Amino acid sequence: MTIRECADFLKSRDGFLILSHVRPDGDTLGSCAALSHALNRMGKTAWMYPNEEITETLLPFVKPYFAPDGFEAQTIISVDVASEQMLIGNSGWNVDLCIDHHPSNTHYASETCVIPERASCGEIILDVITELLEGPDYEEAQLLYIAVSTDTGCFCYSNTNSDTFRSAAKLLDAGAQLDSLNQLLFRKTSVARLRLEGMIYSAMTFHFDNRVSVAVVSREMLERAGATEDDCSDLANLAGRAKEAVVCITIREVGDHVSKLSLRSSSSVNVSDICAEFGGGGHAMAAGCTMKCDLEEAKSRILQAVEPKLP
Amino acid sequence: MTIRECADFLKSRDGFLILSHVRPDGDTLGSCAALSHALNRMGKTAWMYPNEEITETLLPFVKPYFAPDGFEAQTIISVDVASEQMLIGNSGWNVDLCIDHHPSNTHYASETCVIPERASCGEIILDVITELLEGPDYEEAQLLYIAVSTDTGCFCYSNTNSDTFRSAAKLLDAGAQLDSLNQLLFRKTSVARLRLEGMIYSAMTFHFDNRVSVAVVSREMLERAGATEDDCSDLANLAGRAKEAVVCITIREVGDHVSKLSLRSSSSVNVSDICAEFGGGGHAMAAGCTMKCDLEEAKSRILQAVEPKLP
Repeated sequence: MTIRECADFLKSRDGFLILSHVRPDGDTLGSCAALSHALNRMGKTAWMYPNEEITETLLPFVKPYFAPDGFEAQTIISVDVASEQMLIGNSGWNVDLCIDHHPSNTHYASETCVIPERASCGEIILDVITELLEGPDYEEAQLLYIAVSTDTGCFCYSNTNSDTFRSAAKLLDAGAQLDSLNQLLFRKTSVARLRLEGMIYSAMTFHFDNRVSVAVVSREMLERAGATEDDCSDLANLAGRAKEAVVCITIREVGDHVSKLSLRSSSSVNVSDICAEFGGGGHAMAAGCTMKCDLEEAKSRILQAVEPKLP
Repeated sequence: MTIRECADFLKSRDGFLILSHVRPDGDTLGSCAALSHALNRMGKTAWMYPNEEITETLLPFVKPYFAPDGFEAQTIISVDVASEQMLIGNSGWNVDLCIDHHPSNTHYASETCVIPERASCGEIILDVITELLEGPDYEEAQLLYIAVSTDTGCFCYSNTNSDTFRSAAKLLDAGAQLDSLNQLLFRKTSVARLRLEGMIYSAMTFHFDNRVSVAVVSREMLERAGATEDDCSDLANLAGRAKEAVVCITIREVGDHVSKLSLRSSSSVNVSDICAEFGGGGHAMAAGCTMKCDLEEAKSRILQAVEPKLP
């Protein structure tokens, strides 16, 4: 479906329930909430399916759009959800329309509008809202700015492109408060997170002429820092900052003798292959696996597996 | 001067020497180099005055534009330089044209093109080049992307506005390599810097119900981390990340019993007034001072001065 066809479909229906994805990020939540608000502005009933995994930071922006108990949907839409397994809720949803930007979208819905060139789903929703209502209002601009900026790491990740910047310009022109949102989403963090980063950077190790960086996150560190799960987002970025590293490894203790590993690489090393040796997988440049051992043992095993693959 | 008048002035002259500012940043360097390259494309002679304070990261991009020994200028231009005191070089320059975005520009040049609404000087140079040559080429797009992105903290600082995003879109369309430049400028850093951040975050303290954060940087820490001055950019951002802090203090040991303090605040506390008590100054939300004492003593004195000013 094109943006125009997608808009026509939305005009022709009512009673919307909008589904985000499990382990929700700012893109799925901001996009769902903005679409819900825009459909309301058109005089339609539209709610988001309550996504209880939401972080505290995003909760106040998104919660007002959560469907009340007992809401009966006539039209089910999913936003930023690549596959049925990623849909929030346990029911076998019959999704009428899926709006997404993941190239891996499995076309599980009756109608699908996928634009894989877009860095974020928020940009697609912006185009849909522009088609429906000539442009976003303040509330929608705020929500879509959250979507676009979080999915691009504040316009720093490699997915950012010139259309992303043009979308961001439109959102600011529609009133999105860049400074207060950036402070909240990117620039400010908790004391617990700062303490945790101090521990992680201090314990970070570098191997094979700094070509591999390893960050370790133990349960004891989290406790000592007073950190909750909300303080642990994007921890894999920390080891990833090491300039010379071609493989960046983050190992997190998730239980007694259970370690979860996240590997990132520059294009020269396929970390998906390495993780597959331990029953894991992912993409060539970002993959993960779980090992039934403590952090030190996991670190030693993964370094042994990585060394022969280094260029 | 308008952009058009500025472009006409450049068309009418030749033999350009382009001046950046002391303690140069990406905006002044990228803007000067891009303008130099564009003037060359027009068949004119144009060089930058060699700015030897440049960081290693930016050197390869900018060095090709440094004037050879003995170059005799016919026209002197300054870019991103707010006042004569900020001009590179010791000579009493007679600047023919100043292109700048600082609202505080002192109009020291014969002609001045100041657009204070622009987040970076790079955006103004982009408009000038668009007027002169219909748009930047690849080389100029790269240099201007460096200018715009560094002055806005990769589009995260509060100066970022919708024109900034539109300029960034044009630069990407002209070929600027967002991913490789962002990796270099924002996402990747040295092992020494990561070690230093580990020490700084670990030693960071929080006072008065977390309303004040204090980061301390000793010479011993720099030595232990193996950090050089290149690893020390924007260290004041670290204490500034603390969410609840209304005053964020960074204290750096710069000599025996000499401490340099940098204070940032949210709008409710005027840190310029606080720094003035110690012979320093600056802006209401960002100021500094130097104390003739060691780090611990400096920390105790500044906390004493800050406490009564807290809301």
